[in-house]
Amino acid sequence: MQKKRAAILGASGYTGYDLLRLLLTHPGLEISYLTAEKHAGRNICDVFPQMSGFLDMELMPLDAASVPDDIELVFLALPHGTSAAVVKELFERDIKIVDLGADFRLSPGTYTKWYGEHPCPELIEEAAYGIPEINRDSIKAARLVANPGCYPTSAILGLAPLVKNALIDTDAVVVDSKSGVSGAGRSPSLDYHFCEVNEGVKAYKIGEHRHMPEIEEVLSNYSGQNVKVSFTPHLIPMDRGILSTIYVKLNEAKSNGELLSLYEKHYKEERYIRISPEKVYPSTSQVRGSNFCDIGLRVEPSNNTAVIVSAIDNLVKGASGAAVQNMNILAGFEESEGLEIPPVFP
Amino acid sequence: MQKKRAAILGASGYTGYDLLRLLLTHPGLEISYLTAEKHAGRNICDVFPQMSGFLDMELMPLDAASVPDDIELVFLALPHGTSAAVVKELFERDIKIVDLGADFRLSPGTYTKWYGEHPCPELIEEAAYGIPEINRDSIKAARLVANPGCYPTSAILGLAPLVKNALIDTDAVVVDSKSGVSGAGRSPSLDYHFCEVNEGVKAYKIGEHRHMPEIEEVLSNYSGQNVKVSFTPHLIPMDRGILSTIYVKLNEAKSNGELLSLYEKHYKEERYIRISPEKVYPSTSQVRGSNFCDIGLRVEPSNNTAVIVSAIDNLVKGASGAAVQNMNILAGFEESEGLEIPPVFP
Amino acid sequence: MQKKRAAILGASGYTGYDLLRLLLTHPGLEISYLTAEKHAGRNICDVFPQMSGFLDMELMPLDAASVPDDIELVFLALPHGTSAAVVKELFERDIKIVDLGADFRLSPGTYTKWYGEHPCPELIEEAAYGIPEINRDSIKAARLVANPGCYPTSAILGLAPLVKNALIDTDAVVVDSKSGVSGAGRSPSLDYHFCEVNEGVKAYKIGEHRHMPEIEEVLSNYSGQNVKVSFTPHLIPMDRGILSTIYVKLNEAKSNGELLSLYEKHYKEERYIRISPEKVYPSTSQVRGSNFCDIGLRVEPSNNTAVIVSAIDNLVKGASGAAVQNMNILAGFEESEGLEIPPVFP
Amino acid sequence: MQKKRAAILGASGYTGYDLLRLLLTHPGLEISYLTAEKHAGRNICDVFPQMSGFLDMELMPLDAASVPDDIELVFLALPHGTSAAVVKELFERDIKIVDLGADFRLSPGTYTKWYGEHPCPELIEEAAYGIPEINRDSIKAARLVANPGCYPTSAILGLAPLVKNALIDTDAVVVDSKSGVSGAGRSPSLDYHFCEVNEGVKAYKIGEHRHMPEIEEVLSNYSGQNVKVSFTPHLIPMDRGILSTIYVKLNEAKSNGELLSLYEKHYKEERYIRISPEKVYPSTSQVRGSNFCDIGLRVEPSNNTAVIVSAIDNLVKGASGAAVQNMNILAGFEESEGLEIPPVFP
Repeated sequence: MQKKRAAILGASGYTGYDLLRLLLTHPGLEISYLTAEKHAGRNICDVFPQMSGFLDMELMPLDAASVPDDIELVFLALPHGTSAAVVKELFERDIKIVDLGADFRLSPGTYTKWYGEHPCPELIEEAAYGIPEINRDSIKAARLVANPGCYPTSAILGLAPLVKNALIDTDAVVVDSKSGVSGAGRSPSLDYHFCEVNEGVKAYKIGEHRHMPEIEEVLSNYSGQNVKVSFTPHLIPMDRGILSTIYVKLNEAKSNGELLSLYEKHYKEERYIRISPEKVYPSTSQVRGSNFCDIGLRVEPSNNTAVIVSAIDNLVKGASGAAVQNMNILAGFEESEGLEIPPVFP
Repeated sequence: MQKKRAAILGASGYTGYDLLRLLLTHPGLEISYLTAEKHAGRNICDVFPQMSGFLDMELMPLDAASVPDDIELVFLALPHGTSAAVVKELFERDIKIVDLGADFRLSPGTYTKWYGEHPCPELIEEAAYGIPEINRDSIKAARLVANPGCYPTSAILGLAPLVKNALIDTDAVVVDSKSGVSGAGRSPSLDYHFCEVNEGVKAYKIGEHRHMPEIEEVLSNYSGQNVKVSFTPHLIPMDRGILSTIYVKLNEAKSNGELLSLYEKHYKEERYIRISPEKVYPSTSQVRGSNFCDIGLRVEPSNNTAVIVSAIDNLVKGASGAAVQNMNILAGFEESEGLEIPPVFP
Repeated sequence: MQKKRAAILGASGYTGYDLLRLLLTHPGLEISYLTAEKHAGRNICDVFPQMSGFLDMELMPLDAASVPDDIELVFLALPHGTSAAVVKELFERDIKIVDLGADFRLSPGTYTKWYGEHPCPELIEEAAYGIPEINRDSIKAARLVANPGCYPTSAILGLAPLVKNALIDTDAVVVDSKSGVSGAGRSPSLDYHFCEVNEGVKAYKIGEHRHMPEIEEVLSNYSGQNVKVSFTPHLIPMDRGILSTIYVKLNEAKSNGELLSLYEKHYKEERYIRISPEKVYPSTSQVRGSNFCDIGLRVEPSNNTAVIVSAIDNLVKGASGAAVQNMNILAGFEESEGLEIPPVFP
Repeated sequence: MQKKRAAILGASGYTGYDLLRLLLTHPGLEISYLTAEKHAGRNICDVFPQMSGFLDMELMPLDAASVPDDIELVFLALPHGTSAAVVKELFERDIKIVDLGADFRLSPGTYTKWYGEHPCPELIEEAAYGIPEINRDSIKAARLVANPGCYPTSAILGLAPLVKNALIDTDAVVVDSKSGVSGAGRSPSLDYHFCEVNEGVKAYKIGEHRHMPEIEEVLSNYSGQNVKVSFTPHLIPMDRGILSTIYVKLNEAKSNGELLSLYEKHYKEERYIRISPEKVYPSTSQVRGSNFCDIGLRVEPSNNTAVIVSAIDNLVKGASGAAVQNMNILAGFEESEGLEIPPVFP
């Protein structure tokens, strides 16, 4: 079978690199075009010596019009606000697009409230929200996928079985997330200087992070309930991984076993969701470098509360892996192509 | 003034070391006697080369009867269950005791439920619970102080102003704590092997950690309300520090400014509590090596919830620093002696 | 093509896991039998939750006689001293063996001097030393490969072009190696407790590490010169990676460009050696999770010395990746099967 | 005794902070004036929340003329090139100055070769090089001290006993240094972004680092021999600490015991040098936060070589601690004032 030609716009960040890493093992795709605004004109191997021996390609400046005609698949790993204009131009062509940015994740109203005016609101309804585990049919039917945020992925997958089955008080959901530093991107700043991050943990943007409305809107749409979340992200001293610890109030009594069964049943067909046994809670180190979301949970019977723990690699299931999974659906590949690399440990 | 002679029983762990580090800067104390069961017969400098040039002393086997007669102050940094018998024997003498273990922190009933039968329940009522910021008078009046657990310290100091003023729903308190690895002690085990901890984060003992009843009982006693906590501890890849992120439901509307003022007022006289400005949340790296508990918070006005973040160094304010502070109160020193070392950063 | 059935004896350590990770992407092999002495009877997914969804297999006790008859390929990832007896029994059968331990790396005399009496010295001459880049023909001709030590791999690959071409004073070679902690294995001990390793760096076994005679003997055999090395290993706070910084005295003046050309030419056909451009020195982070050895160098013209820097992932090119590469040669697969996973970064 | 008023020019970097940390425990000094170019107008506690409760002071712009008249002691922690002009102006007054930058460390010729033209070469001869252990008398006699570089401190202290006693081949000294990231300062750049540094080790500026001529010149002056060093610095993923592993050729046979005795004798009177017992090599974690330089060594009898390992905290003995020690000598305090804080561990 002839390989489909793919482009990555925004290839010099951590997400761009992880796309390269995964796509190089994909049998149906050929990486044919790369852009990187800051590094235009340099070879990808100068920016990522890791790529030496795998890919010998010049980075081009970002310009939608210059994307070659034979490109069939496009991944956008651009700062938010930048994607929309590019998508607008590419959407005219017969191209499948996965946008890893935030521009097409939210409804127009929510977008405007949290990000400001949208550059091409008319395209928002063309975009499918890219969590296959809750939205596969929409993705199949679309040409444009809005790849989800990293925090939302971990929170939504952790909560989906509960909200779908109307098992919890949707007014009192607490999501406490802990992220590695790669989630903040590759641009240097004092906040992510090694010595500022190492040997410390802190909360940031409490109740004000843009991923909060994404979690709420997606879960509300998915469940038909109005889901309200108290979301606090934390930065911890590691490269990769997000652990979300989720606190919910159950509407009725459930045992650990019952709730675990519900999760297992809900995700039975899902290759990239793994449910931990009772009393076992996943570490992000068990999904490192892989596309899995591992979920564990515990019910507190004395007051009908439950704690759900969900672990992903923020760069894989939280970004590039999800993007490959979504593109596989869009482009008609096996959903698991390029994603069957086991976790790296330690 | 003649220095008082002090002993540390259990000097070879991380808590023992941090006691040494602090006490060596204390003008009123002289470290005179050390025990370390596993290392008896060795010099403290063989166990901690860090101590070379500061202290040249042989480690003795643990035996309450062998503690010299001229010892006036005793710190116990022993595995729980071990302290009680030692305390029983030492309490007969005219000695001030700070026990860093769990044996005297809980009421007899709660202790039995979570730890099993108590070896000397009759002494429990002699012990003051050692958080001076909520319990200074009891400590002054006691001869035996139960030094608090590290997680409870961060949770209790974060919640004290709220429960004391009856401002929250005490049935729906969530405490999500993130701890560095030194909290697990110095005994080798696979769980704390470098490669198992590094580059990962996980929850453990959800709803089952023995520090949960300690938080609940202490806050209930302090506030006269029945405080119920959902407590989830996490292990993160750093040496020192605990960050507790606390989620509460407010009984009435408060602004950020009002709640911050309340905290500032509540802790106005407390040297070791620092309140962060609005929209600033503390990192554990700003208390590293020091006796401070730094607290920040944010109110979510749309649903009367609040998030409180409290940061301590688990080995200092969460263990040895608190022990020195407690002993200063017991022994009549200035409360800050040995504790005025600024944080180490980075 | 029918897959060949493979066994891993000693599957529960970090090297065992990395073998699984790589072999699961190998099209010609089927993992069919696993042993793990300490974990016998448990499922591999209980020991490594990372494997869930990939492999569902019980760990067997170590017993050469119980290795099924249909096993064609065996990897041994056992403590040294344990391998030899197993190899002895398996060698009777028509099986290809890669031993990741130290038992067959050295000549009988050197082995005895550094490790003690050898359990089956008669088999030593059957074993090929497993660095394909210097020894491919011997490996092809063998049934048993002694997989090299991690430090020796980095040192030997860094020095091979120089000693082969008789360019340096072989009496004055300094090898200063920095290793991540996974090189020490997965058995808990105080030395590798998180807090003992984190935020520190130390040298150990200076001039006494068993990898020193391995470096010397292999390079001497390879070059026909008597190579003498001053070897100092260091432990640094990271999971994976070895960087060896090698100091040599050149026999004659060379420019940076000349020496780089020599390395490029020497390794021109080698898939897993990458030479860095002038003034660029590799970080271990550019080979993480991959089978590459990246090499950079600088000549000091004022006194005809050179510094060579070689970076590997100790668990891949320094252990499991090399084992797969060796087995591919032994078993007639493409040498790169199972090894074309790009590095993980960050 | 009245405290002397001290200023820190350049207080917002890691070195500036560590000066504050140490000086706050100094009984003879009062911190009275701070500058920080980038943060002028802000309170020190906004830049370092760590300082809250210790120091409440506005940061001033850098301007030598504005340093108040009553300042008696000045520490300069400025980028190199910036110090010289400031020193020139302050030197006119009756002020004791410790310059933590590079401007006065080298002879005019060496300075020009490595850094370019010197702004006030006439002052170079007024400056004493600030390693008290080799240069105490010069420091006592001076008004201006050039505080040494962090790498040079570790290398010079490790080599001083050998070169002073003419025991080694001074043409063939290898210094392989491993540094934590704080040595690179607090300015954000991609090189020191958390994810670029974490989980990796690399060499940089091989044979070209400006600390190399400093090591050579200082040791040559100290020993009367022409010392030539091959110096390779490495960056490792930790905050603090430098370990230098030094390889030398002995002029005559020595045993481990003999060489250790020589070091012990050489440094007998030195509070901040600790010699490790035979076969024990220091970790940087045993000097963390303290002013010690710990040294271990091993002789290889077969070829008369020796390996010396020296460990410091780069921010203390390698910067701020040395500055305090030097200022104590300049200003007539006890040399140990402000420096008797034990190491922080873990």
